[in-house]
Amino acid sequence: MSFHSRLFMGTGGAPSLYGLAEALIASGTELTTVAMRRHDSASAGSLFGLVSDLGVRVLPNTAGCFTAREAVLTAELARDALETDWIKLEVIADDQTLLPDALELLDAAEQLVSRGFVVFAYTNDDPALAVRLERLGVAAVMPLGAPIGTGLGILNPHNIALIVERSGVPVVLDAGIGTASDAALAMELGCDAVLLATAVTRAQDPPRMANAFRHAVIAGRLAAEAGRIPRRGRARASSAMDGRPDL
Amino acid sequence: MSFHSRLFMGTGGAPSLYGLAEALIASGTELTTVAMRRHDSASAGSLFGLVSDLGVRVLPNTAGCFTAREAVLTAELARDALETDWIKLEVIADDQTLLPDALELLDAAEQLVSRGFVVFAYTNDDPALAVRLERLGVAAVMPLGAPIGTGLGILNPHNIALIVERSGVPVVLDAGIGTASDAALAMELGCDAVLLATAVTRAQDPPRMANAFRHAVIAGRLAAEAGRIPRRGRARASSAMDGRPDL
Amino acid sequence: MSFHSRLFMGTGGAPSLYGLAEALIASGTELTTVAMRRHDSASAGSLFGLVSDLGVRVLPNTAGCFTAREAVLTAELARDALETDWIKLEVIADDQTLLPDALELLDAAEQLVSRGFVVFAYTNDDPALAVRLERLGVAAVMPLGAPIGTGLGILNPHNIALIVERSGVPVVLDAGIGTASDAALAMELGCDAVLLATAVTRAQDPPRMANAFRHAVIAGRLAAEAGRIPRRGRARASSAMDGRPDL
Amino acid sequence: MSFHSRLFMGTGGAPSLYGLAEALIASGTELTTVAMRRHDSASAGSLFGLVSDLGVRVLPNTAGCFTAREAVLTAELARDALETDWIKLEVIADDQTLLPDALELLDAAEQLVSRGFVVFAYTNDDPALAVRLERLGVAAVMPLGAPIGTGLGILNPHNIALIVERSGVPVVLDAGIGTASDAALAMELGCDAVLLATAVTRAQDPPRMANAFRHAVIAGRLAAEAGRIPRRGRARASSAMDGRPDL
Repeated sequence: MSFHSRLFMGTGGAPSLYGLAEALIASGTELTTVAMRRHDSASAGSLFGLVSDLGVRVLPNTAGCFTAREAVLTAELARDALETDWIKLEVIADDQTLLPDALELLDAAEQLVSRGFVVFAYTNDDPALAVRLERLGVAAVMPLGAPIGTGLGILNPHNIALIVERSGVPVVLDAGIGTASDAALAMELGCDAVLLATAVTRAQDPPRMANAFRHAVIAGRLAAEAGRIPRRGRARASSAMDGRPDL
Repeated sequence: MSFHSRLFMGTGGAPSLYGLAEALIASGTELTTVAMRRHDSASAGSLFGLVSDLGVRVLPNTAGCFTAREAVLTAELARDALETDWIKLEVIADDQTLLPDALELLDAAEQLVSRGFVVFAYTNDDPALAVRLERLGVAAVMPLGAPIGTGLGILNPHNIALIVERSGVPVVLDAGIGTASDAALAMELGCDAVLLATAVTRAQDPPRMANAFRHAVIAGRLAAEAGRIPRRGRARASSAMDGRPDL
Repeated sequence: MSFHSRLFMGTGGAPSLYGLAEALIASGTELTTVAMRRHDSASAGSLFGLVSDLGVRVLPNTAGCFTAREAVLTAELARDALETDWIKLEVIADDQTLLPDALELLDAAEQLVSRGFVVFAYTNDDPALAVRLERLGVAAVMPLGAPIGTGLGILNPHNIALIVERSGVPVVLDAGIGTASDAALAMELGCDAVLLATAVTRAQDPPRMANAFRHAVIAGRLAAEAGRIPRRGRARASSAMDGRPDL
Repeated sequence: MSFHSRLFMGTGGAPSLYGLAEALIASGTELTTVAMRRHDSASAGSLFGLVSDLGVRVLPNTAGCFTAREAVLTAELARDALETDWIKLEVIADDQTLLPDALELLDAAEQLVSRGFVVFAYTNDDPALAVRLERLGVAAVMPLGAPIGTGLGILNPHNIALIVERSGVPVVLDAGIGTASDAALAMELGCDAVLLATAVTRAQDPPRMANAFRHAVIAGRLAAEAGRIPRRGRARASSAMDGRPDL
């Protein structure tokens, strides 16, 4: 799995196919998620056609599934329909919080891995759960920054950093992103990529916001690689204060 | 005053002229600050030569001045030496905190404006002081995010937003920036530009960090223009949860 | 289950029995946790004697257990030794993070409830997991503020508020507390009580810190009940600005 | 100047004298601020009578003054009327933000000190300005946590800690407090006292909230004295994990 762009963009929340196309192009994304359960065949057809025309790879997801059983069936459906082993695994606990359910998630991940899927596991920000998912053989762990659609950013950077530190598979920050600095922070914490949808599709100007995130992810990645200055409790002049002329 | 790049980069803290040149180029900056009081004529000559070769405009600053009198003299010195009316006005209270001194700052700003300078006023994040500076006729207010060299980011985003909201002149976030997400946040708060030095010059890989900030400032500006989604206390699915198949 | 004090204090980390006694008294606590696995019979005897002399109820815990099997055995051991059905259930994923393991925790909670235990379940701050624990019949959910012993406070207040909002059983903030304001915040978020140990036992002056927490928990509870003023983006004078004399 | 209680409570925002009395009693305060400019003689009479009956010392303030001249005149008025040299000096920049104006504040402080007043200077959270005020001879510096009436708490704890660290006179956190944990935090940062008004008078249950703050200030002070545990990036068991039985 290798992409030039570290920004993955979902298709959810887009008011029109045309607007979505513009945003996808502006984002520079090479991978997009599509909910299998939310499309009748007609509109789904157009959506898959669009994404395919743009040369963007599709990552089907199991959004809206509450149980491992539902999620596995949805994944099989996606594999048949889209001829891909890749699946973004989402198993939510309820439709108020849309938070992942740890137990069903682990069950589904285990089944999907054993059926030969490449599993991208959407999870909460629990570092212990991330380790379990990795041990089950998922291809990537995708912790949330905040609940889906809230735009609250990364509520617990400490946990995201812990997940990154202990993970042997790619970590993708997924859900909660509201604006560019959130995405930059995710990358600075060591994430390998960022996945977002409504932060773009429901912004006032989606293509412009997509472009913002494109730059933000690059910025955060470069900053993580460049080795930031340490935080200091006290000020420090940018140069020594000697050599001043007498005035 | 018009620049393509909204990232201004100071020259302080750079270990070598060569490294500085690389970082300036990578940052894409069109305006750089140079401390008048910190250079003997020899090294200053090389520095100004370098900056001039790169086609970057110089903004001399009064770093290290503790009084209005010192700052005004330093500005006059800069005007003579560099043939520019532009001056970044810095009057600090002490050399532990390097925080601006409100009283001397106002005094110096008034004198400099009356002497025909174009004053870029480095200030704390007090919205009332920013209004006073604007009334005195400064060209831009430059509030700090955190004390110089700390890398603590923007300690009080509320105040920066207040300053932006009430300002009729450009607002440049100056000092305290540690990493890319800090710069993106500054722009999202509505700042017109970001000025930084040690966050680049003292990073482990200065050119890479300069490039990070170049993208971060673009990202934050685009995000500010694009109209972010509102923060929501509760989750919201990216698409309606109907239309699911029976499984 | 009814206590006057909403501060529960663990015994872990205390350098001496005498110091622990002083701190327990100063805290005003009526419930203390004791690790079953960490005491040989001699020192355990002194500890239980002390606690009993102070009239403080003991809540044995399963600290140091990595599996449901270990935790259930430890709980049975505690029931035999201490003649109490109460058990603080702790099942950790590893000894670096000391974070709860969701899967083993759920398994253990189910077994313990079916064996007639009154289960106080130490958990991470995942609102979905808290709901699962409640459905299994635990007596209280005890989400962490931050990893054990870190003193980082409440890393994700949003999640704690969500847990409280959805919980039908008492919520006790457990782990991560560093200082008094953390405990007050926990109560303001709606928690029913706070449990802490090292924040007191490893403070420089444990009895004084215990007293601090005693007041902090009362303060936070009263504030939660009293209905705080809303946060406002802009200032508001405490009285109307009319009626001023002419000067 | 010596008080048992470190909570000072203002009278602004109280809907009735009776409610105010209850809240003052519940707060345990020994010092209350009263705005000189906001009371006609009749209601002011009742207010001063009430406060006097409660045995609470009055600290008149210059709320609503925009200039040093106004503030000095108001202070003189207060001295005549109330026979006290004590004055809380408030000079605000405008009636939208109610933020202190650094320049007029310094001017007024200098005049008042030279006229023999004991000056409690309400200021922003600028550490450099606090030093200037101290040098002018004020009795206490009173930095804001956030703009008056916002309830946003302490927006910049870093600055408050800096002010405390450098101050030779008492530091009183004034303005912005919303709830108990804010007040506890102020004390933990090293403040000597907290002053608040609307956080109590506009709470849903003012006497209960006053009581909350009474405990919060005690809690924060004790915690500051007791020496909190350091923040740690990683978990640490509260006791060694040896001595476990074989299970």
